[in-house]
Amino acid sequence: MICNWKTKKKKENQNTNVRVSLPAVCFVWQIAMIILFGVFIRYDEESDAHWVEFKREHNITSDIENDFYFRYPSFQDVHVMIFVGFGFLMTFLKRYSFGGVGFNFLIAAFGLQWALLMQGWFHSLDPATGKIYIGVESLINADFCCAGSLIAYGALLGKVSPVQLMVVTLFGVTLFAVEEYIILTLLHCRDAGGSMVIHAFGGYYGLAISWVLYRPNLHQSKRLNGSVYHSDVFAMIGTLFLWMFWPSFNSAITDHGDGQHRAAINTYLALASSVLTTVAISSMSQKTGKLDMVHIQNATLAGGVAMGTAAEFMITPYGSLIVGFCTGIISTFGYLYITPFLEKYLKLQDTCGVHNLHALPGMLGGFIGAIVAAAATESVYSAEGLINVFDFEGSFANRGVGTQGGFQAAGTCVAIAFGLVGGAIVGLILRIPIWGDPADDNCYDDEVYWEVPEDEESIPPSNMA
Amino acid sequence: MICNWKTKKKKENQNTNVRVSLPAVCFVWQIAMIILFGVFIRYDEESDAHWVEFKREHNITSDIENDFYFRYPSFQDVHVMIFVGFGFLMTFLKRYSFGGVGFNFLIAAFGLQWALLMQGWFHSLDPATGKIYIGVESLINADFCCAGSLIAYGALLGKVSPVQLMVVTLFGVTLFAVEEYIILTLLHCRDAGGSMVIHAFGGYYGLAISWVLYRPNLHQSKRLNGSVYHSDVFAMIGTLFLWMFWPSFNSAITDHGDGQHRAAINTYLALASSVLTTVAISSMSQKTGKLDMVHIQNATLAGGVAMGTAAEFMITPYGSLIVGFCTGIISTFGYLYITPFLEKYLKLQDTCGVHNLHALPGMLGGFIGAIVAAAATESVYSAEGLINVFDFEGSFANRGVGTQGGFQAAGTCVAIAFGLVGGAIVGLILRIPIWGDPADDNCYDDEVYWEVPEDEESIPPSNMA
Amino acid sequence: MICNWKTKKKKENQNTNVRVSLPAVCFVWQIAMIILFGVFIRYDEESDAHWVEFKREHNITSDIENDFYFRYPSFQDVHVMIFVGFGFLMTFLKRYSFGGVGFNFLIAAFGLQWALLMQGWFHSLDPATGKIYIGVESLINADFCCAGSLIAYGALLGKVSPVQLMVVTLFGVTLFAVEEYIILTLLHCRDAGGSMVIHAFGGYYGLAISWVLYRPNLHQSKRLNGSVYHSDVFAMIGTLFLWMFWPSFNSAITDHGDGQHRAAINTYLALASSVLTTVAISSMSQKTGKLDMVHIQNATLAGGVAMGTAAEFMITPYGSLIVGFCTGIISTFGYLYITPFLEKYLKLQDTCGVHNLHALPGMLGGFIGAIVAAAATESVYSAEGLINVFDFEGSFANRGVGTQGGFQAAGTCVAIAFGLVGGAIVGLILRIPIWGDPADDNCYDDEVYWEVPEDEESIPPSNMA
Repeated sequence: MICNWKTKKKKENQNTNVRVSLPAVCFVWQIAMIILFGVFIRYDEESDAHWVEFKREHNITSDIENDFYFRYPSFQDVHVMIFVGFGFLMTFLKRYSFGGVGFNFLIAAFGLQWALLMQGWFHSLDPATGKIYIGVESLINADFCCAGSLIAYGALLGKVSPVQLMVVTLFGVTLFAVEEYIILTLLHCRDAGGSMVIHAFGGYYGLAISWVLYRPNLHQSKRLNGSVYHSDVFAMIGTLFLWMFWPSFNSAITDHGDGQHRAAINTYLALASSVLTTVAISSMSQKTGKLDMVHIQNATLAGGVAMGTAAEFMITPYGSLIVGFCTGIISTFGYLYITPFLEKYLKLQDTCGVHNLHALPGMLGGFIGAIVAAAATESVYSAEGLINVFDFEGSFANRGVGTQGGFQAAGTCVAIAFGLVGGAIVGLILRIPIWGDPADDNCYDDEVYWEVPEDEESIPPSNMA
Repeated sequence: MICNWKTKKKKENQNTNVRVSLPAVCFVWQIAMIILFGVFIRYDEESDAHWVEFKREHNITSDIENDFYFRYPSFQDVHVMIFVGFGFLMTFLKRYSFGGVGFNFLIAAFGLQWALLMQGWFHSLDPATGKIYIGVESLINADFCCAGSLIAYGALLGKVSPVQLMVVTLFGVTLFAVEEYIILTLLHCRDAGGSMVIHAFGGYYGLAISWVLYRPNLHQSKRLNGSVYHSDVFAMIGTLFLWMFWPSFNSAITDHGDGQHRAAINTYLALASSVLTTVAISSMSQKTGKLDMVHIQNATLAGGVAMGTAAEFMITPYGSLIVGFCTGIISTFGYLYITPFLEKYLKLQDTCGVHNLHALPGMLGGFIGAIVAAAATESVYSAEGLINVFDFEGSFANRGVGTQGGFQAAGTCVAIAFGLVGGAIVGLILRIPIWGDPADDNCYDDEVYWEVPEDEESIPPSNMA
Repeated sequence: MICNWKTKKKKENQNTNVRVSLPAVCFVWQIAMIILFGVFIRYDEESDAHWVEFKREHNITSDIENDFYFRYPSFQDVHVMIFVGFGFLMTFLKRYSFGGVGFNFLIAAFGLQWALLMQGWFHSLDPATGKIYIGVESLINADFCCAGSLIAYGALLGKVSPVQLMVVTLFGVTLFAVEEYIILTLLHCRDAGGSMVIHAFGGYYGLAISWVLYRPNLHQSKRLNGSVYHSDVFAMIGTLFLWMFWPSFNSAITDHGDGQHRAAINTYLALASSVLTTVAISSMSQKTGKLDMVHIQNATLAGGVAMGTAAEFMITPYGSLIVGFCTGIISTFGYLYITPFLEKYLKLQDTCGVHNLHALPGMLGGFIGAIVAAAATESVYSAEGLINVFDFEGSFANRGVGTQGGFQAAGTCVAIAFGLVGGAIVGLILRIPIWGDPADDNCYDDEVYWEVPEDEESIPPSNMA
């Protein structure tokens, strides 16, 4: 299974000069974005200056009914998760904090533009005008779409060049839009917080790329593959902003009213529960009961991932606690046993352990969603509520909850398949030796792509000046 | 007064192994939460899928009337204060940043679950169904309730084990719910931002525990009881998020409309005023006018604490400035003179100076609230406004503002009494030598409970690789 | 042009004792604020307890119509930008992080109080009562007003005393209120996000002060004028919170409904585009394509600055991308070529490069706004929309879009003129040798104004204890 092409040693004097390729990619893609936006993207009726007429025509009595006021606070929370949450979570390496937060910034800023187009073409292209009309919900979806690629970056952290990351994002966003179309539109699944479409897809996408890019001599960079005291504190900034705003993530695009309200409550509870079981397992795993920062930084978030699908359902508050309870345990076990296993036996190097935080809890979240959907009843949801929550309208008016559960499970499989196959193909593309990726003994090192300031130790005491 | 049992030297080879106790506590309490949530906690009518029916029955015309949209932005700000604000404020010690932010995370995640139950039983148990119905306001209240225990943690920082902190939180939340019931329900006090129920209670609770846990040989850990340059910058993250979001804290559960609006304005102004007087006193206290980071990190927040009760009243904008002015001075003086005094003469070790930031300004805030309430008039509030602000309805319809002021003052005393007595009892419980607390020469040290990475100095320069 | 008085060497044993002057300024100004607030400032009808009557009289059906719910989430985002965004952006220097974030905190806390008064006198003084009525929009405007002085601080970072900064802020806020009155009220310009009134003014104000305070021997502090690894990571916290919340900044005070919605979308897009061109130019500028943290920390924000005026217009999504594209390039070029040029030939020392991030993109933003305004048509805006967006009402009912464009351009010039002239005068005031500013060989050093903890290296390993 582990082919020969996977064990070739990276040349030590690998060319990591990206002075031509990185600017070229940035310019070409940004110019392409401008042209495509010019052709396709317009304001929707709620962000267009015609809103005042639209309001009158639709008997909307107040500006507060503009979707902006329903969703903008959640949007900003999601935005913080994407840039500060994911970004700072990846600063934990002792000398890759610039790359962690900086490349996260770069690829999210590109990805969200490409996502507006890709998601627009698949979900909201107006056939009459050939235009995509965007509003605040589109921005949230674009941020969500980036998240898939940022998760993949977690598996690749420190081992790829920024040019490769731009390629990962280009294909990642494209694949995301397609799988999302299949799962949400064709299969008519519900996946408000993206357990399936974001986390399972993004996790397996990154893992598949990392598997193809396996570096047998990565141990040569071992000295840099770890944290220092303050880099672990920086990473906690990422952890906490992800943790705190996850209720907004899972509720950002759910139905107005009870949908958003319930999704926030469920996620809040699942996350709280994850923290306790993560601490418990982390402490049990050390001879003296000491906690491991890697677990606290990551596995505490598993409850949010696993509630991505079911958060808007009537999973009940204690149901949410149970989900967080189990996924906290599973995710911490993942860091303890599965990641080393994958590295040793499957030749899979997963820098941030995205398998334990995203792939596995995302997959579980998909199946939890399927079960909760299948168990829905009219007495719990009310007749109207059931239709609202599962959107049983139009051609899906007669779908039963059992069928819905089946489709939810199928959707999870589609997401995983897209991640694995798409990631393998993108991984092969990234093996072409033109992308300026670092040598095996140069991974996890900001020196390769950043001007790094002199070391802290060399500050002369001020009284010597 | 200082009994003999308070001066016993902690054995140097204290057993700090929490490998059994910490996981046991986490598992047992989390499982208890799941069971109790299963029995008691349900969605309220605004987060339940029946909302669509509820809306119709109550002639609610728009989803925007769901309490979610009134309170969720404030909730998220409060959430940030609890986890990033309190958490990072406690990272200032040079080698206890993991413990500061990590244990804060753990106990808040447990505390909010227990708070939902305790506050539910006391405040919103439906006698007909025996259930507690939760919505976004419950989440805010749960976060508030945790704040009491997190404040107490500030006095204990670096000197207790995570198992002890779980005990502190279990009892802290319980006591909080009881005193809150007495103060808000029986005495019918107003305390939107919790000067009394959160800060005065939490502060004295922590101080009483710390007093009972007095360590005569704590000087043996002196080398670690201080900051380094970057840990002080980390702590400023906590300070600023607390400072910026305090207007949301004090307005999160006030009345819709003018109540939330006014509480935010008053808190904003009081905080601004605190900053200037803190800087002034801090600068005056040093021979050369240099500022002390401890003051800037803490005393600048005193204005927010002291406005916790009065923020929703018509205290006037300049009244808010005066409150901030005075409490900034008092709090900074506290750090300069009261904390050393308490340590020397009362044998009270208060790591973060919660006396100066929470206990004292909270008590002052309670009395300020009493005075402002007693001075309320119909001309200032309007007849209807007076009833709304003080909730003079039902059995309290005939209460005058003077009486209200008296009850507010009484409420402050109740909060302090609960803190002191409750804290003393919890302190005694924590003296049982089973909790894995650190030895006197091992305090303020993350090595005791965390896997700490190698030191920064040992990073080999990348060109040596 | 460079007068003799500009080249005098600062005495090495400059007196930097601010023990009298700093507390004096803080106390006097804070007391003045209290008195002036007592005389002038009152709650507006939406934050006053009379709201319940006001609501009835104006047939307002729901509390959700209170402006608080339209603007408070944006206010909090702006508040974060002012305190964490600006504050942490200025922590990048290796030994001036306390001063960066701490003095930013001090002057913003003072500035917002003075801004409420100054803006109140110019914009909302009720002639009948002689009072200023404040609500959430006033708080946003006060934060905006501070931003001008905080930008100026960026040019002065490390070279001035906190007392001088209080003077910079006192005059900065005053000048701001006057130029804002001229630009927004007399010239009837639109400038929702403040390209002109905030960024162009603030940038040139700071540059003019810095020019007058030129230090020919600043090279003596060269050892401290740079970053270390972790200070650059801290600065990214500032960058990201500014970047993420800029859509809230530009939309915070635009019209309810489509105005806020559109401004957020446009700013989001412009910022994303800036990131890619900043990375491209930064990478091109180094022989090996390495990125420079200074560019990533600053130039990525230029798109937000440049959209400050046009964000609420129908600039179209691709128009926003083009603005971000160009300003990202220009700003990065500024850091590469203009800042060194200004320092060498104009004797202008600009610590944070505010010329490249604020002054120049702000000026461009003003002119972009003028062009977009002049190009507005009824077909794009709708007849009503055009009137709403440009506020063509009252005495401006007959102004055409062409004229509006001309006034917008004139407004930009007014802002720059106020910045340059005002800054020169304030600079001269700051040259009076009474303010306790640091000597040339003592700049960029927290030791001068802060109690700085011992160095990190001196932590004894815990096992030596």
